[in-house]
Amino acid sequence: MCELLAMSANVPTDICFSFSGLMQRGGNTGPHKDGWGITFYEGKGCRTFKDPLPSAESKIARLVTDYPIKSESVVCHIRQANSGGVCLENTHPFIRNMWGHHWTYAHNGQLKDYANSLPVKAHIPVGSTDSEHAFCYLLDKIHYKFFEQEPDYQTLFKFIAEQCVEINKLGVFNVILTNGEYLFAYCANNLHWLTRRAPFGKATLIDAEMIVDFKKETTADDIVTIIATRPLTDNESWIKMTSGQWQLFHKGKTVLSGGEEGNLNKG
Amino acid sequence: MCELLAMSANVPTDICFSFSGLMQRGGNTGPHKDGWGITFYEGKGCRTFKDPLPSAESKIARLVTDYPIKSESVVCHIRQANSGGVCLENTHPFIRNMWGHHWTYAHNGQLKDYANSLPVKAHIPVGSTDSEHAFCYLLDKIHYKFFEQEPDYQTLFKFIAEQCVEINKLGVFNVILTNGEYLFAYCANNLHWLTRRAPFGKATLIDAEMIVDFKKETTADDIVTIIATRPLTDNESWIKMTSGQWQLFHKGKTVLSGGEEGNLNKG
Repeated sequence: MCELLAMSANVPTDICFSFSGLMQRGGNTGPHKDGWGITFYEGKGCRTFKDPLPSAESKIARLVTDYPIKSESVVCHIRQANSGGVCLENTHPFIRNMWGHHWTYAHNGQLKDYANSLPVKAHIPVGSTDSEHAFCYLLDKIHYKFFEQEPDYQTLFKFIAEQCVEINKLGVFNVILTNGEYLFAYCANNLHWLTRRAPFGKATLIDAEMIVDFKKETTADDIVTIIATRPLTDNESWIKMTSGQWQLFHKGKTVLSGGEEGNLNKG
Repeated sequence: MCELLAMSANVPTDICFSFSGLMQRGGNTGPHKDGWGITFYEGKGCRTFKDPLPSAESKIARLVTDYPIKSESVVCHIRQANSGGVCLENTHPFIRNMWGHHWTYAHNGQLKDYANSLPVKAHIPVGSTDSEHAFCYLLDKIHYKFFEQEPDYQTLFKFIAEQCVEINKLGVFNVILTNGEYLFAYCANNLHWLTRRAPFGKATLIDAEMIVDFKKETTADDIVTIIATRPLTDNESWIKMTSGQWQLFHKGKTVLSGGEEGNLNKG
């Protein structure tokens, strides 16, 4: 399995604190030693750092930890390979383009029989993971449903959530997907989130000896949501998502959600 | 204007030496201070480092200089903005996916009236440069010509060269394009290349005090081609490409070329 980390914020915010914790799980406090990657959006642009080496030992991970890149949307993944070899093309996040946006995706879980059950045509995977294959399938579905005309965000992300429910039937499908503006999280079985806003307090990492006082790092208007497979701090109230639940964040706030008690089907 | 650097090699090779020279032109020995980016292919996977900051001062550029990533195909670009603001989404190289490959593109030059003359539909630019727009146009042309069935490489790259000739009519269009396996270079007015192979000798950078003895770094079978806007070393024989000429490299060797004395039209 793997671990996911993502951020949605209303001001460019660095994720160094959370990243420092997660990176330790890549070969040190956790077994996710088969590569890692992180994508930062800065405006419409984004940049990705990735490495098939364990994050706890990676020079590039050290640079990212020490070099605060301020971003409104971040997607990060550390990998414990189960489908597809350990190599760069199998390292998350995966990025494709649609409607003039970079779309970034990362997956935690495992899917059975995905090659037969999830046919792809317009989007062909580069690597050999179930994860990238499912991403290409999702993009194909979006492409053939909407193609030239980008729908409003409610229509689009409800459609995406419906596809996630279908893909989820093949196994475990915890997913993060963002176009830099909206950040979507779908929970199959394991995803937590919390929103930090004023009054800010201190937070203590679980995986490294590190405390941050967000009061010193933020202004009163900041809203920052962090999504992670497992909580990264031990003194904050993380919300555990339930199976089939999804949340859509925009500038740190939930703007749409579904999947609880059949909400999804009610649209 | 900008500067391009690219590499095609038959063994994974690091480009630290050439990169060290080029980076100095980003704000130190040259005026290309509006960002830089480099894409390394490792197998089918690739990773890109980019920064809208001047390369001569960039922490990320320093990491890339010091951290030898071995690659068979590299595309690098330092920018002096003329079309589009200085920001991450306008920083080359640009990457899109086609037929299960990452396609990486960088451009040196300037195009007039590109928005009207180069209509795009299936590939929409993220940023606001003439460069990315021309890339999207090129991908659209390929998409609507071939779509589902990837043609053989000769057919594909001759078609790409024909499109470059057309785009070139709008201004200056020096281009590097690769899918990691094949590396294509089209010269509008300024592009040089050389192939290093046994017997290897010493090379001296123009832009930094640095000499490398390739004899110590290589084996007798290595073939490494470097393409650059301007020569990077002062004691090697760089071949200047002529206007309209193009070269296709595969594992360091030229496998197809055209554009000299009407060769292109003769197919």
